[in-house]
Amino acid sequence: MIAIGAAIALNACASSPVALRGTADLATVIARASGEVAVLDTSNKQFTGIIGGLGDLSHASIVYARDGRFAFVFGRDGGLTKIDILSHKIVVRTLQAGNSIGGAISQDGKLVAVANYEPGGVRVFDAETLELVADIPTTIDGGPDRSKVIGLVDAPGNRFVFSLWDTGEIWIADFSAGNTPSVTRYQNIGIQPYDALITPDGRYYIAGLFGEDGMALLDLWHPQSGPQRILDHYGKGEERLPVYKMPHLEGWAIAGKRAFVPAVGRHEVLVIDTETWQEVGRIPVHGQPVFVMAHPDGRHVWVNFSVPDYDTVQIIDTQTLAIDGELKPGTGVLHMEFSPRGDQVWLSVRDDNKVVGYDPYTLKPIAELPLPSPSGIFMSDRAGRIGL
Amino acid sequence: MIAIGAAIALNACASSPVALRGTADLATVIARASGEVAVLDTSNKQFTGIIGGLGDLSHASIVYARDGRFAFVFGRDGGLTKIDILSHKIVVRTLQAGNSIGGAISQDGKLVAVANYEPGGVRVFDAETLELVADIPTTIDGGPDRSKVIGLVDAPGNRFVFSLWDTGEIWIADFSAGNTPSVTRYQNIGIQPYDALITPDGRYYIAGLFGEDGMALLDLWHPQSGPQRILDHYGKGEERLPVYKMPHLEGWAIAGKRAFVPAVGRHEVLVIDTETWQEVGRIPVHGQPVFVMAHPDGRHVWVNFSVPDYDTVQIIDTQTLAIDGELKPGTGVLHMEFSPRGDQVWLSVRDDNKVVGYDPYTLKPIAELPLPSPSGIFMSDRAGRIGL
Repeated sequence: MIAIGAAIALNACASSPVALRGTADLATVIARASGEVAVLDTSNKQFTGIIGGLGDLSHASIVYARDGRFAFVFGRDGGLTKIDILSHKIVVRTLQAGNSIGGAISQDGKLVAVANYEPGGVRVFDAETLELVADIPTTIDGGPDRSKVIGLVDAPGNRFVFSLWDTGEIWIADFSAGNTPSVTRYQNIGIQPYDALITPDGRYYIAGLFGEDGMALLDLWHPQSGPQRILDHYGKGEERLPVYKMPHLEGWAIAGKRAFVPAVGRHEVLVIDTETWQEVGRIPVHGQPVFVMAHPDGRHVWVNFSVPDYDTVQIIDTQTLAIDGELKPGTGVLHMEFSPRGDQVWLSVRDDNKVVGYDPYTLKPIAELPLPSPSGIFMSDRAGRIGL
Repeated sequence: MIAIGAAIALNACASSPVALRGTADLATVIARASGEVAVLDTSNKQFTGIIGGLGDLSHASIVYARDGRFAFVFGRDGGLTKIDILSHKIVVRTLQAGNSIGGAISQDGKLVAVANYEPGGVRVFDAETLELVADIPTTIDGGPDRSKVIGLVDAPGNRFVFSLWDTGEIWIADFSAGNTPSVTRYQNIGIQPYDALITPDGRYYIAGLFGEDGMALLDLWHPQSGPQRILDHYGKGEERLPVYKMPHLEGWAIAGKRAFVPAVGRHEVLVIDTETWQEVGRIPVHGQPVFVMAHPDGRHVWVNFSVPDYDTVQIIDTQTLAIDGELKPGTGVLHMEFSPRGDQVWLSVRDDNKVVGYDPYTLKPIAELPLPSPSGIFMSDRAGRIGL
């Protein structure tokens, strides 16, 4: 049975009491063309409300406060907005930079960090008030230029880890002693890191490289050992296809003892053994992969693709590495997100202006909800997940 | 800085509006002598309220509904109670058996299962109404006797897995096709399984044995291969110490590539490689371990002990297997629970009638809250965790 939801309007009624409810089954969905974030009730399979006025969300992401009620929206235009997913309101908003790409929340929930392109660097804010508490410019050789920052994640011990696109570095900013971080720089990690993930336990930080074929691995338990190159030359000297959409790396790449990551400019998913960090397989797929996400039970990974192949999602068996299933949800499948125990998966289908829920075991649709230009979907369960 | 909380009384005021809040930072704490459950706000480090009338909680546990607001309390007297942790109320309560030991919630959140000693078996209830939907008696050889059930967990695919103390079996009850389960029995798994855990991805079910030294492992991806004995004869023929308190197994036993489990009747924690399932180490500890729980960052496991050594908690480095730290929180440390990202750990100290919070990195106390005879502590984040 599919629940068809009606489109919902901005909640303008400030005086109605908001119904008491839990937050664990809620998710947020970016409506990228209209600067809005919709709140999805995954138990009732309906939107509960929508929050507008969030600026340029053409590339945006969300992290959650430790209570699961408040969330932080990182907008492309440098907007940083704290929202309340229960009352569907903006709590605090700041335009903290000219152009930014993502963010993270600290382990203790007190600090929110933003990865900025312009000016290059990381800015860190008090999670309660969004007051600036630290500014980490990613200067290049002590000169006036600053590197774009990508791949910003939180790590255990109240640290933030991020990479520098222009200079090929990984930095760790340690806030465990207070609001003035101690910063450690790791240089020569590779050419043009474009995104990064941290393993679910927060031990390994893995940056994907765009300027060459390979990834950089940093063991945060032994960072003094420095970055290690993995999957080196995975392109085998072959010419890369034009890349229209950068792949994305998330902690959900890990399934059991393996990591599944998108190859850049190739129609392949690469499989890494997380004990040896060696490549143990590669899977030919439908197009250039954008997101490769493991189901919480680790048995399958789901893959979506860049234009022009973004009408398709493939489902790979993590043991056999075979493609077990395929979905054609519509045009512009931008993101996928599993419910925390894996009973549902939600897909945003941008060009069809809808969000579709599926039973990931039977592949039957369970809901289809209209939303203009949906993109990222974020379960509030991420409030309790290192690196997300 | 330690927050000292005042004792709180039963909230008898039904007409006050309950303040809107998230649920992700809440936990429940069993007050085992008074049949009450207190709700702990881990952000403000205070109790928000207490729910009474829960019967015999001398051994009790809690699972959460998928929304994180409702929770199910399994009491020793067979009581099954649905509570609301926001309004501090009982929603529904049933006395569903004479004597029971624990329970689980299904992957899709629709079913709650209870492990019963008397009458032996598993009963399954609608999570909304607590109406009985299935009854699975654990009959012995088709006769009138029924085995006690222990080690009941949920598994992916809307299954429940549990073990039979009297007959040495593991059963899988599969509810994926509806409310009449298909049940598969695995016999001869070992003598007197006393508890079990499921790995965080829901793949491996591991039952600890009491009647002999060893554990039984069942790969739920390939259950037809049957149970496999691991850690066989770990006692090496040595006489076991008298066991005053059974150890407990939880999914938090897994840290990275290893599982850390209590030895029965020995002052040891056993270390298992989760690739080969071979013993790779054993750690001499302060007393007979009861709970062995990994910090979410996987870097340490925390161990508490049975009487008479239950004034101590030891902290083990999962790489070196050395004892890194020790706490003496008070007498009767019954349970430990980490906040989801690992910024806090909470301990129940029964004989000192208090719950104590610590920073697990500095080992400094962050809160001390009075509560009569506290035992189990359960973060509401468990709403999104397979097997918990």
